[in-house]
Amino acid sequence: MGNVCQVRGMVASICIGEHICCMIIGIMGNPVKRLAVLGSTGSIGQQTLDVCRALPQRFRVVALAAGNNVDLLVKQVQEFKPEFVYFSQSDGRDEEATVRLADMGCILLSLGDIAGHPQVDTVVVATSGKAGLAPTLTAVRAGKNIALANKESLIMAGDIITAEAKKNGARILPVDSEHSAIWQCLNGEKQEAARLILTASGGPFRHYSAAQLEKVTVAQALKHPSWQMGRKVTIDSATLMNKGLEVIEAHWLFNMPFAGIEVLIHPQSIIHSMVEFSDGSIKAQLSYPDMRLPIQYALSYPERIANPGLPRLDWSNIKSLTFESPDFDAFPCLKLAIEAGKKGDTYPAVLCAADEVAVELFLSQRIRLVDIARFVERTLEQHQATAHPDTEAIEAADVWARDKILELVNGVY
Amino acid sequence: MGNVCQVRGMVASICIGEHICCMIIGIMGNPVKRLAVLGSTGSIGQQTLDVCRALPQRFRVVALAAGNNVDLLVKQVQEFKPEFVYFSQSDGRDEEATVRLADMGCILLSLGDIAGHPQVDTVVVATSGKAGLAPTLTAVRAGKNIALANKESLIMAGDIITAEAKKNGARILPVDSEHSAIWQCLNGEKQEAARLILTASGGPFRHYSAAQLEKVTVAQALKHPSWQMGRKVTIDSATLMNKGLEVIEAHWLFNMPFAGIEVLIHPQSIIHSMVEFSDGSIKAQLSYPDMRLPIQYALSYPERIANPGLPRLDWSNIKSLTFESPDFDAFPCLKLAIEAGKKGDTYPAVLCAADEVAVELFLSQRIRLVDIARFVERTLEQHQATAHPDTEAIEAADVWARDKILELVNGVY
Repeated sequence: MGNVCQVRGMVASICIGEHICCMIIGIMGNPVKRLAVLGSTGSIGQQTLDVCRALPQRFRVVALAAGNNVDLLVKQVQEFKPEFVYFSQSDGRDEEATVRLADMGCILLSLGDIAGHPQVDTVVVATSGKAGLAPTLTAVRAGKNIALANKESLIMAGDIITAEAKKNGARILPVDSEHSAIWQCLNGEKQEAARLILTASGGPFRHYSAAQLEKVTVAQALKHPSWQMGRKVTIDSATLMNKGLEVIEAHWLFNMPFAGIEVLIHPQSIIHSMVEFSDGSIKAQLSYPDMRLPIQYALSYPERIANPGLPRLDWSNIKSLTFESPDFDAFPCLKLAIEAGKKGDTYPAVLCAADEVAVELFLSQRIRLVDIARFVERTLEQHQATAHPDTEAIEAADVWARDKILELVNGVY
Repeated sequence: MGNVCQVRGMVASICIGEHICCMIIGIMGNPVKRLAVLGSTGSIGQQTLDVCRALPQRFRVVALAAGNNVDLLVKQVQEFKPEFVYFSQSDGRDEEATVRLADMGCILLSLGDIAGHPQVDTVVVATSGKAGLAPTLTAVRAGKNIALANKESLIMAGDIITAEAKKNGARILPVDSEHSAIWQCLNGEKQEAARLILTASGGPFRHYSAAQLEKVTVAQALKHPSWQMGRKVTIDSATLMNKGLEVIEAHWLFNMPFAGIEVLIHPQSIIHSMVEFSDGSIKAQLSYPDMRLPIQYALSYPERIANPGLPRLDWSNIKSLTFESPDFDAFPCLKLAIEAGKKGDTYPAVLCAADEVAVELFLSQRIRLVDIARFVERTLEQHQATAHPDTEAIEAADVWARDKILELVNGVY
């Protein structure tokens, strides 16, 4: 650990044992938040860095972590000059990447060391899939603020994460636009919500018949009508699996029973979600679909910061906001996910793992889009759940589900 | 002043000098709020009593005041058994009414004595027009919570009322659905709003041409498409004067420059208004158009209370929410009001007084609907404003405007 804080503002350092706590005061008198961005080369990671680029007096990137795309990571390191970097790639280029990053003056740390580092105020967990679970748990146990863009960690281990967050004073700040909307609407309310209404664009195949859905291509599924997102979440949006996962996430984030969470199709993606209170009053949060807004809010909370780069809603261009009920028959993933969430135990972990594999198989054109629900459902049916699982049991369920869905697919195709 | 608190719960009385402060604890452990309802026989007054009827364990009506309809007032007194009553009617039945009310065991007080009474926690000012100003000022000076349904007091004397509220620790709680929506959206936010977006149904004559507007009847103007309201505000909604008055009200309630307040036509009256924050995020409040919700929120704030009588939004019935820009040419009252608000001084008082007379003349079929804007505009043009007016100067401007608009109408019709 370095013993010098390189910051862009006034620095007050207080030594406490081996740790150096830096209270960094920005140019405007507001505290500069020190961020670790995990998954910095992904869609949410890049947009997080866009926000930091626009507001350097408020956010300082002290750590970057990526699992692939070393070239982009190197560029990010050149621009943001973080103290700490993590890189891990499965294609064998780790060593070369390590040398390049070390040559740039970065201290290379493990993902866990970054997630719990005393020089980090807020950990942005923007890693995709199951890989987000371990660093989220580390950050929660270190009592960090966690800007959580990774759905899977809460879905797989919501019980453990929320209990550990409470115990260690960690704060989980949602980054998903829907959960950010709900969180913003709950601001300052004395009572809990009576009902959460998660909006969904409906994806590119809204109103498709079963026969039409059988034939959709990868290219069609990757064209989301309103959001620019990573490939995994774009496919999950096309099947509505993503909305089902968000229902489970909302259950854990807002301590809301599943019966109190509704899904509403809203194709324009302007209303990002709504909260109904005990008196029947509903609050909604609106904006153009741009992930930088919920990312920035998670970073700036409880403040809001003007950012000229963020688009403003122009009401002269918005003629109509429309709503419809989701089609649970055409999009069985939505129901599968909610059912897995209700059953709990290791079912949500199996759901996540099976879906992650199924989406990969669809992207590599091994299976059709409609097969995702079919194979995930069969995997869930064959699962022998572990009650009140610890992280090891969750990990075991994850491994089992990945093997099982591959076995099921191999038996058919 | 009585020295016994007749309440429906557990009572703890603490004598402080001549005043008896009653901390009344309801059945559920929540404090019972003691209300004075001024204008109890009008539309908002009756709906306020509906809320009290539904939630007797939370609200206790200790005073009723009405300016007409003694028969309804007597019924309300029989039902709610207030300690104090005020009645004043211009048709000479005052004495008979006084006897009837005294016979029922009520203490008859002046409006001012009720508005400032130590046994009253919250004063609901639901009187229509200029008559709301004096009791609002009294309640503000007595440091009360004021559930303010009367627009005119803030519009005529916003400067004085907001300064006195600050000085005396009074809290002005908006009852208008638009201002309640904004207030709810501001809940818990650290910073002030960047922009307020007041929605308007557009009234019954949205999309009417100038020629069509020339011919509308009183019966047509009294048929509001989405709200059940009193006659004055229904006509003001048909001319959009009501929305202009609300812009001025919002300016005072939320300390927002006029440039930061926009009007947006939204015919379904589901989104009651919106707030845009510095980061571009917008929050909106939604419900079916039912005044009992904003009334109840003003009474229950900062709590929310479940009330089975209030309708819940059923999203399976809401297909589309639409928006359009207001037509300032077809509805000149909107612009007149905003301009008078911007000019300030005694202009808003003249606007209110001239409009009150003009609406009466329209309702009695002396003038056409389109004449309201014409005569109000001429009255404003001829006004010699008093800068930084005190209440006497405001009163004088009010009297001048009433005479002037009558003179102008008499010169034409």
